[in-house]
Amino acid sequence: MNVLIVLAHPERRSFNSGLVDVAVKQLVDAGHTVEVDDLYAEQFDPVERAAHYPHQAVDVDYFYPLNEQRAHFQQNTLPQDVQRELARLEWADLVIFQFPLWWHGQPAILKGWFDRVLVYGGRYTSRMRYDQGYYRGKQAMLSVTTGSPEKAFQPFGRAGNMVHWLWPMHASLYYVGFDVLAPQVSYGIQGGGIRYQAEANIIGHLEDCKAAWSSRLRNLDSELPIPFTGWGDWDDDGILRQTAPLRWRLG
Amino acid sequence: MNVLIVLAHPERRSFNSGLVDVAVKQLVDAGHTVEVDDLYAEQFDPVERAAHYPHQAVDVDYFYPLNEQRAHFQQNTLPQDVQRELARLEWADLVIFQFPLWWHGQPAILKGWFDRVLVYGGRYTSRMRYDQGYYRGKQAMLSVTTGSPEKAFQPFGRAGNMVHWLWPMHASLYYVGFDVLAPQVSYGIQGGGIRYQAEANIIGHLEDCKAAWSSRLRNLDSELPIPFTGWGDWDDDGILRQTAPLRWRLG
Repeated sequence: MNVLIVLAHPERRSFNSGLVDVAVKQLVDAGHTVEVDDLYAEQFDPVERAAHYPHQAVDVDYFYPLNEQRAHFQQNTLPQDVQRELARLEWADLVIFQFPLWWHGQPAILKGWFDRVLVYGGRYTSRMRYDQGYYRGKQAMLSVTTGSPEKAFQPFGRAGNMVHWLWPMHASLYYVGFDVLAPQVSYGIQGGGIRYQAEANIIGHLEDCKAAWSSRLRNLDSELPIPFTGWGDWDDDGILRQTAPLRWRLG
Repeated sequence: MNVLIVLAHPERRSFNSGLVDVAVKQLVDAGHTVEVDDLYAEQFDPVERAAHYPHQAVDVDYFYPLNEQRAHFQQNTLPQDVQRELARLEWADLVIFQFPLWWHGQPAILKGWFDRVLVYGGRYTSRMRYDQGYYRGKQAMLSVTTGSPEKAFQPFGRAGNMVHWLWPMHASLYYVGFDVLAPQVSYGIQGGGIRYQAEANIIGHLEDCKAAWSSRLRNLDSELPIPFTGWGDWDDDGILRQTAPLRWRLG
């Protein structure tokens, strides 16, 4: 299996980076091939704008992102960095996104990866989406770190419901066809990189998180993806048919 | 009232820009003062990274964003663009965020505004947050455009639940103390700027959206903010007290 790990953290010695190292080791030991896509190291530009499309623009006077994405996809003139990301996605069977939860979502550099890479016309259209999405057959997973401890994220905890924080990303991945595996969340990571491992209990916690991640990756092939609704569940207006069974299995 | 409008759209003649114009007109006519913060025009850099903190770094060998934010806030050496945004927020009584829904959230340039501007130590701490947040007494509101039509966003519609898509932003604004007003959502905006107003029914729809926005702004002082839980609702572990009344009023 080809595994692409998209990393979004500005510090190479961060705990997020450490989790990437754990994943690489575990996956390679198991015989898989891994590529790490370090967005910060590659200085990925997350801002979608006209300057990314200097040639053959659909409309030189008005920048409409979706039109430009589609036209440039069709003409094979997408920006180089986007083409590189798309090539990585073609190669990958599993895509792991590794990032810290910043303001209840992914860091801006990773939000922009969605904005710029999943191009309209090329990777989704009005028919090629959801369970007819381009990436059907591939898997995706979020590996997230939080500053606040796990107890803050309990049901009715003040840090909120992690299912809700990750829903926009999960829904976006499913929108382009991925089977989405349950997220791996490492709680209570307070600048847990090498520099700050000053206290034994913190070290123990970080090692537990790494061990849990490694164990999870060893057993991925036994996992079922998060179920989503699909075309067969909606009527012509895109509304869930009243007779569609609705079973939420996130366990 | 001082109103700051934070705009996140790459095209100045977009419908999002048009909604900003409508807001400026309505608010100024009503006697308010308005400033428009056009993130794309100002080329706001949304990516939090070490390069923004070249001086007096807490740790030159390890970039821990929260530590650098706090230290630079205390030393009054935050990056110039962040200082400018913070000054705007000091001045504002109401902050309106105007943006298109991209991948179930805000464009990356606006996600990075949260990542970089709402600095740890300066605008939130472990005690100064939620209903003790720095911006308490100020109001915030999201004005969002969608490509898909409203019917797709009906309950159980395939485009999902708008309350869920906006929850990370709403929670983030409340986290730093804002009273959050209900969002204004303009549905079915398909590149609805000046260039594409080719069909009468589209023009009619766009005008309806503008009129609804103008009318909403005229009557803001009669609105109550979205209620959130606060310190009085949680026990020492940050879990909702079992006896706390839970009433969800989003009407």
